[in-house]
Amino acid sequence: MTYCVGMRIDRGLIFMSDTRTNAGLDNISTFSKMRSWSIPGERVIVLLSAGNLATTQSVASLLEERMKAPGDRHPSLFEAPSMFQIARMVGETVKEVIAVSAKGGQNADAFGASFILGGQIKGGQPRLFYIYPEGNFIECSADTPFFQIGEHKYGKPILVRAYKAEMSFEDATKLLLVSFDSTLKANLSVGLPLDMQIYEADSLQLGEKHRFTASDPYYQTVSQSWSIALQSALDQLPPFSFDK
Amino acid sequence: MTYCVGMRIDRGLIFMSDTRTNAGLDNISTFSKMRSWSIPGERVIVLLSAGNLATTQSVASLLEERMKAPGDRHPSLFEAPSMFQIARMVGETVKEVIAVSAKGGQNADAFGASFILGGQIKGGQPRLFYIYPEGNFIECSADTPFFQIGEHKYGKPILVRAYKAEMSFEDATKLLLVSFDSTLKANLSVGLPLDMQIYEADSLQLGEKHRFTASDPYYQTVSQSWSIALQSALDQLPPFSFDK
Repeated sequence: MTYCVGMRIDRGLIFMSDTRTNAGLDNISTFSKMRSWSIPGERVIVLLSAGNLATTQSVASLLEERMKAPGDRHPSLFEAPSMFQIARMVGETVKEVIAVSAKGGQNADAFGASFILGGQIKGGQPRLFYIYPEGNFIECSADTPFFQIGEHKYGKPILVRAYKAEMSFEDATKLLLVSFDSTLKANLSVGLPLDMQIYEADSLQLGEKHRFTASDPYYQTVSQSWSIALQSALDQLPPFSFDK
Repeated sequence: MTYCVGMRIDRGLIFMSDTRTNAGLDNISTFSKMRSWSIPGERVIVLLSAGNLATTQSVASLLEERMKAPGDRHPSLFEAPSMFQIARMVGETVKEVIAVSAKGGQNADAFGASFILGGQIKGGQPRLFYIYPEGNFIECSADTPFFQIGEHKYGKPILVRAYKAEMSFEDATKLLLVSFDSTLKANLSVGLPLDMQIYEADSLQLGEKHRFTASDPYYQTVSQSWSIALQSALDQLPPFSFDK
């Protein structure tokens, strides 16, 4: 499995993804699930992926190859006029890859993959999309300001409760790490290290990138302190009284 | 869906279950998923169920009918010599119900149901079991002191972090309510009211029972205060620093 989050805040976009892939318990590997492309001053594109690794790698490879072969009939990530067009392009590429994979009569579901796409193109706003294995997609909104793909349930409650549009990137990083740590503690198929990418609105260049390993001091602080903080939060609530 | 938890603490057993059942979004009903039987001073049995409602109701009905027909070749819940034998009996009944349901050639998976069984029989210890749709079962241990069935992921992180064997029933109730509230807030298929049942070790009688409705003042306190407490717990953690 996988756990990835893309979140829109007033200051821009923030992305986090784990790196564990598995095909059975005895076939565990580390692959980054975060890819980014940019033309500084013109466009920034970040893509997170979950699902069949062969599918997600093929999608990324096709998108990259088409950027290098300008004669190709497909438009490229660097030519598309809007983030919406890029979402369509990723969606079409997913459909294409899955269709080819399932040609042998296999069930297309086995090749499924989901994506979170975010970025900004000069003249537009920062935008964030969730792309389904079927190739269609939805865009985040003020009501749904973040998308999760993969093993999303364990880490959702804290996001729902603590997300604020006006939060800083520092606080957003903390929130995402807590959400990831809850997931890591509950599900072995999500694993360290974690990749994080910041995009500051209107900067039109990739912001800070950070890889949190198990030995990362900030990750250790969050992971250890959160249990204590959570326990003290629970202690603050009054216990149930059976005399009522 | 459903969310049920059975938890063993030093002081005994505590059970909580939601009451929402659905067969599609436009067919939502309220059914208790908690059943209990007792002979005060001799035995106490509590059963929580998740899965196909027809299956879980049939299992409970068969168990009850067999208690009233002593000539039946099946032993009854009130005759079985140990909680282990009761777990086997429930397991056999589940298998039987599913086998009958799937006789028409349907896929047995569609009739699946899981159970949490807890209780104590005079001369034995309080015991807690997880019974699979296949009819086999596992027992809780010091390493795995609680079982969840149904929509268990949202509410797991807080249980993992805050469970303590030595906690009071008052604190255990609070912990379970927080776990349920996280699930209710994240998943529409889990719904109020919540049923709770306490069993004090060696009391050999059913303890306090409580139904938490949306207007229950303690439930409201927990639900409202937990967001604030969680936010303040998050505030206690240092924000990430990009200068590192």
